[in-house]
Amino acid sequence: MNAMKIGIAGLGTVGGGVAKGLRVHGEMLDARAGTPLELVAVCDRDPAKREAFDAPAKLDDIKALAASKADLIVELIGGENGAAPMLVEEALKAGKHVVTANKAMMARHGARLAALAEKNGRALKFEAAVAGGIPIVKSLRESLIVNGIKAVRGILNGTCNYILTQMEATGRSFDDVLKDAQALGYAEADPELDVGGGDTAHKLALLTALAFGVAPDLDAVSVQGIRAITPDDISFAREFGYRIKLLGIARQTDNGIIQRVQPAMVCAGTPLADVDGVLNGVVVNANEAGPFFFEGRGAGEYPTANAVIADIVDIARGNVGSVFGVPAASLSALSPAPAAGASSAFYLRFQVLDVPGVLAEIASHLAKWRVSIESMIQRGRAPGEAVSIVMITHETTYAAVEGALQTIAGTSNVVAPPVKIPMEAK
Amino acid sequence: MNAMKIGIAGLGTVGGGVAKGLRVHGEMLDARAGTPLELVAVCDRDPAKREAFDAPAKLDDIKALAASKADLIVELIGGENGAAPMLVEEALKAGKHVVTANKAMMARHGARLAALAEKNGRALKFEAAVAGGIPIVKSLRESLIVNGIKAVRGILNGTCNYILTQMEATGRSFDDVLKDAQALGYAEADPELDVGGGDTAHKLALLTALAFGVAPDLDAVSVQGIRAITPDDISFAREFGYRIKLLGIARQTDNGIIQRVQPAMVCAGTPLADVDGVLNGVVVNANEAGPFFFEGRGAGEYPTANAVIADIVDIARGNVGSVFGVPAASLSALSPAPAAGASSAFYLRFQVLDVPGVLAEIASHLAKWRVSIESMIQRGRAPGEAVSIVMITHETTYAAVEGALQTIAGTSNVVAPPVKIPMEAK
Repeated sequence: MNAMKIGIAGLGTVGGGVAKGLRVHGEMLDARAGTPLELVAVCDRDPAKREAFDAPAKLDDIKALAASKADLIVELIGGENGAAPMLVEEALKAGKHVVTANKAMMARHGARLAALAEKNGRALKFEAAVAGGIPIVKSLRESLIVNGIKAVRGILNGTCNYILTQMEATGRSFDDVLKDAQALGYAEADPELDVGGGDTAHKLALLTALAFGVAPDLDAVSVQGIRAITPDDISFAREFGYRIKLLGIARQTDNGIIQRVQPAMVCAGTPLADVDGVLNGVVVNANEAGPFFFEGRGAGEYPTANAVIADIVDIARGNVGSVFGVPAASLSALSPAPAAGASSAFYLRFQVLDVPGVLAEIASHLAKWRVSIESMIQRGRAPGEAVSIVMITHETTYAAVEGALQTIAGTSNVVAPPVKIPMEAK
Repeated sequence: MNAMKIGIAGLGTVGGGVAKGLRVHGEMLDARAGTPLELVAVCDRDPAKREAFDAPAKLDDIKALAASKADLIVELIGGENGAAPMLVEEALKAGKHVVTANKAMMARHGARLAALAEKNGRALKFEAAVAGGIPIVKSLRESLIVNGIKAVRGILNGTCNYILTQMEATGRSFDDVLKDAQALGYAEADPELDVGGGDTAHKLALLTALAFGVAPDLDAVSVQGIRAITPDDISFAREFGYRIKLLGIARQTDNGIIQRVQPAMVCAGTPLADVDGVLNGVVVNANEAGPFFFEGRGAGEYPTANAVIADIVDIARGNVGSVFGVPAASLSALSPAPAAGASSAFYLRFQVLDVPGVLAEIASHLAKWRVSIESMIQRGRAPGEAVSIVMITHETTYAAVEGALQTIAGTSNVVAPPVKIPMEAK
């Protein structure tokens, strides 16, 4: 029986995990793959990293790897542009299968790379790119899609979820908790891609493509991160029976597809509200048999490496198929729903001077924009000083809330930009 | 392109759902399958049922279906023995693929039928047999297994979970709630297969096979149903911070594999405790990247029919592979762990006469069996009448608890058989 020959590019934690997994679980994986899996080449610019691997070919050049005798290339270089997509293209053109964990590349170039893979009759798999160890890519591509999906909503970034969970547990500020997370290795030295929401946006664009049969469209994702969330917001949320989570939300509407990354109020006791710490969670709402909920570890050596290995075994078993579940040629362009027309209920927080009439003034501006209030908390009294007024609105439009907040922000008793957080439907 | 020709045997709710799904979602499914899916034959002994279907061949005989021009047979006849396995054997021998929702047949004859399928180079898929719409069979077979699984634990029977959830919500007895469930169609007229735990055992045997690479072994499952659970047990559980759920538990231990179906105390706030009503939930504990949690609808027309359709599409895409993830020839015989040696903490309830010294007597018997008590509730006083004494023990063995309870049951102040419910580890 012919072995499946594997080459790995990018020899960091995950690359090491893949090599180790192939070695440690070799016998079991070969039985499942139906053919021996053989690591034939590794590739990294750093000679020290290459030398740490036990592989016949240790290469420093992606072109050499693409021309090697590997049947399948594992791309773990990362990055939206540059070496990663170059390697993937070369490998597919050379008739090799590709497995990648690169969400940025797939979100940006996924449709084009999928077309190239399918033209060459090769697989391009990316389970590890979304939610680490949770098999959500395969489940959407091969199982859930039959049900007619309405929405996919997920906690897709463990760093943000860890920070929000810690802020809730300790009452400490975003900046303090971020520093701890960096010290513990849960956040990068430059945390922007995580806390700014960009990483979640990459993953969301891929889930959207799988769920709705459209080409990934990163530019159509509206992105807001978690930097503006305060311990006050978290504690008010709890008073109202909610928890604040950074969600990636893709929803099919009559006006097109909504893709949003944003902090949201998630009702306590619902599955996403209980996803704690570095875990990821995904809810799939379907017309027929849903909802479905998946939870597990979304990052780290084992979840990511093992998702890569599962893709390798799948390809060796002959499960090639379309990259996004439908042929790349029939992926339609995503038709984004107009953002301002979207509707939601909102949590609003106003930092105001505690003077008579301030609440009436805010309420009258909201009324002018037809934003109606469901409940309100004004905590503490501090005449002449700043206090918080917090409200939950009835369902309204983003446009109305943004219009009202802009007017209110300009009034004299409001001392900080108002905060708005959408309430996530159950 | 050659169409994939499909024949359906057993034209009940699920069979109707499969035919409808193939028709309604035809275009999308064909794109995903890469080939047209075509319903060519239906088979049922009831002519009225056959006539309701729009198919070229309407057959009353499974032998005729097995000899028809279908490439793939959907077996929805049900039953451990008889027509169902006969059809599956005939179809596989005739070179047809098979998709089934038949958990009893697969739990009993799965290894043999898998060997037959693989010998003939055909698929035998059974996603719909376990947890309905949740893609747990595929996830175990093709994704999670890389992680080295230690345990699979699930709420696998929606009827039992509905009854327990309603008992908790209303405080009513098992019998009352069962009657309501029957009236609502959530329980069968003969509910024994569900409430006795047998249905969960079938599903558990399949999950065990997938998780540990062993042949399904239904006889090695110890089975206890939910008939003995009282509203008192449920309310005491809540006082201790637990909920009572019927779990199927498969665990790899140093002494072999444990397979148990039993009511268990599940710690509130953990994922399985929050699986409510007719939902199913499965936790997969892995050595490397786990735990994983899956939740969704476990039964009904759409979840079951759509799981069948996903299997059909998978086969049409060429994803045949081994039935249980490893070749049937290499499925090892399950080595069951000795039941009595298994350990757990327990909830114990004693119905006793409220007379001086009764607690001391119970405690001394437990001590003789080296069962030590972590906490205790004795609620209310009713001198000379029956009251409940409830305890949570420290970890001990099933053998010790059973020995102690047998002794205690024989003492004069104990007026009903003592109840024991194991505490499920988090």
